Amino acid sequence: MIKVLFAGGPTRWEDYRAPLAAALAEAGVAADLRTDHPPEAVDYIVYAPNGPVSDFTPFVRAKAVLNLWAGVEDVVGNPTLTQPLCRMVDVGLTEGMVEYVVGHVLRHHLGLDAHILRQDGTWRPSAPPLARDRRVGVLGLGALGAACARALAGLNFDVAGWSRSEKSLPGIACHAGDGGLGRVLARSEIVVTLLPLTPETEGLLNADRLARLPEGAVIVNPGRGPLIDDEALLAALDAGRIGHATLDVFREEPLPPEHPFWPHPRVTVTPHIASETRPATAARAIAENIRRGEEGAPFLHLVDRDTGY
Amino acid sequence: MIKVLFAGGPTRWEDYRAPLAAALAEAGVAADLRTDHPPEAVDYIVYAPNGPVSDFTPFVRAKAVLNLWAGVEDVVGNPTLTQPLCRMVDVGLTEGMVEYVVGHVLRHHLGLDAHILRQDGTWRPSAPPLARDRRVGVLGLGALGAACARALAGLNFDVAGWSRSEKSLPGIACHAGDGGLGRVLARSEIVVTLLPLTPETEGLLNADRLARLPEGAVIVNPGRGPLIDDEALLAALDAGRIGHATLDVFREEPLPPEHPFWPHPRVTVTPHIASETRPATAARAIAENIRRGEEGAPFLHLVDRDTGY
Repeated sequence: MIKVLFAGGPTRWEDYRAPLAAALAEAGVAADLRTDHPPEAVDYIVYAPNGPVSDFTPFVRAKAVLNLWAGVEDVVGNPTLTQPLCRMVDVGLTEGMVEYVVGHVLRHHLGLDAHILRQDGTWRPSAPPLARDRRVGVLGLGALGAACARALAGLNFDVAGWSRSEKSLPGIACHAGDGGLGRVLARSEIVVTLLPLTPETEGLLNADRLARLPEGAVIVNPGRGPLIDDEALLAALDAGRIGHATLDVFREEPLPPEHPFWPHPRVTVTPHIASETRPATAARAIAENIRRGEEGAPFLHLVDRDTGY
Repeated sequence: MIKVLFAGGPTRWEDYRAPLAAALAEAGVAADLRTDHPPEAVDYIVYAPNGPVSDFTPFVRAKAVLNLWAGVEDVVGNPTLTQPLCRMVDVGLTEGMVEYVVGHVLRHHLGLDAHILRQDGTWRPSAPPLARDRRVGVLGLGALGAACARALAGLNFDVAGWSRSEKSLPGIACHAGDGGLGRVLARSEIVVTLLPLTPETEGLLNADRLARLPEGAVIVNPGRGPLIDDEALLAALDAGRIGHATLDVFREEPLPPEHPFWPHPRVTVTPHIASETRPATAARAIAENIRRGEEGAPFLHLVDRDTGY
């Protein structure tokens, strides 16, 4: 019987114990799932940052580290990690992200805030343009970014995407590289940031790049807080150059109550809820990768240690 | 050369003159388009309510009345109207409606108002359920209702639809008749009303039917104001039985400033902007029907005078 160590911390163990046991049984994997296997006996590590494991050295026979989250920036640089590392690609996580992104893009496209905030008895008939005339940019075309770009294009938005390496997605104008980034920024009335956090993407939206966006552009960031230079963003918002920023992720979370994002009239803070890994679907993704490992099949969503995602 | 009378009023004439001329030429129809043909010479009437024509008797050779709008309740009962009447089905109108409906359904699904209205420095992480676990009902499965139901189902919402006559739409649980209406209401956390206004649908959402909705249900009405009994809705909102109503259409428009909908904390008024006929695309729909009339082909979107839509 293979030994699976749950190293996601005690709170998550409560949420994951039953779904993981069920998913492993469903996948036909006979597993001993615990939080306290001796390291040298462990076959697979189910991992989350801030859990009990930070040194992977004693896990000498572990075949893979299976991350519970999509972002791996807290573990990918760990020098003791010599085992294969897999990202979480959870259908629930993808669906939640698509709903958040499409909801906020439509909110800004339709100008919903004006209606929600200003019910003052004045009839101001002014219909928004059609989505086909609204240019949206999606930065990052991984599993989440591609799903959001597809959903937005499905609603007729004029969508361009950007990724570091060349991609091709039907219905999306795909750009890559530094020149491509400038072109996508220059056309995007609404820009969605769904890039992995790497040394190359940290501070990607700095003062120079924010200045490339059209006047009044809106930013939706459900990706990672450090993708944006906060000071540069605040300056662009104060100047009215950027029309609004809806931010779900921050350099420090929870966002401190005194942070200037909270009271800023052009900022909407949401508390890292764009998407969360859901135990039932995430457990199936973990079990599927363990089944693959046992059958000698390639792991799904294996992290490239060079690119960092 | 056929004679086309534009009877949409002088303001709309400004918007439609050039697009209609262009669309007729594009459709290969040689037409004399004016606002002042003598009635007995007119071949086709392009019509809007509140325009110059209310008596159709003198238009003895007119082959069709082509309505500029989707709703025909202001003209269908006109006893002088003996000519065929066609509704407007405009791709721009459908797209605009889909964007409004999906935007507001996602707004309520995701609980956006709480974030927009309460940026108070308190981090309250609580992710909404997935759309697959959110039950939405669409009342009315004509061109607009069906398009909205499809778009919502495409985002994984659990969608049921209701129409007077039996319909079948892939991915939508379609119900019909009085019993079907009760079933759709009983399951719908969010209900969208996109029915035509007829004697049968006026006041459809009365006190009894509102009481069938689940506790805290949300209503989105971009269809017609009189579909809802306003007093019954206000009572249900005051009691908290209905969680919210987002209303785009009203018995009296503009909605008077003193109307209790405006200040109600559970009501969002939007000023009849869910969808508007757009001259460029609407002109093509009109020209296509004139082309068909001249070729002896059946008109598109012909109104059934018995059902009233």
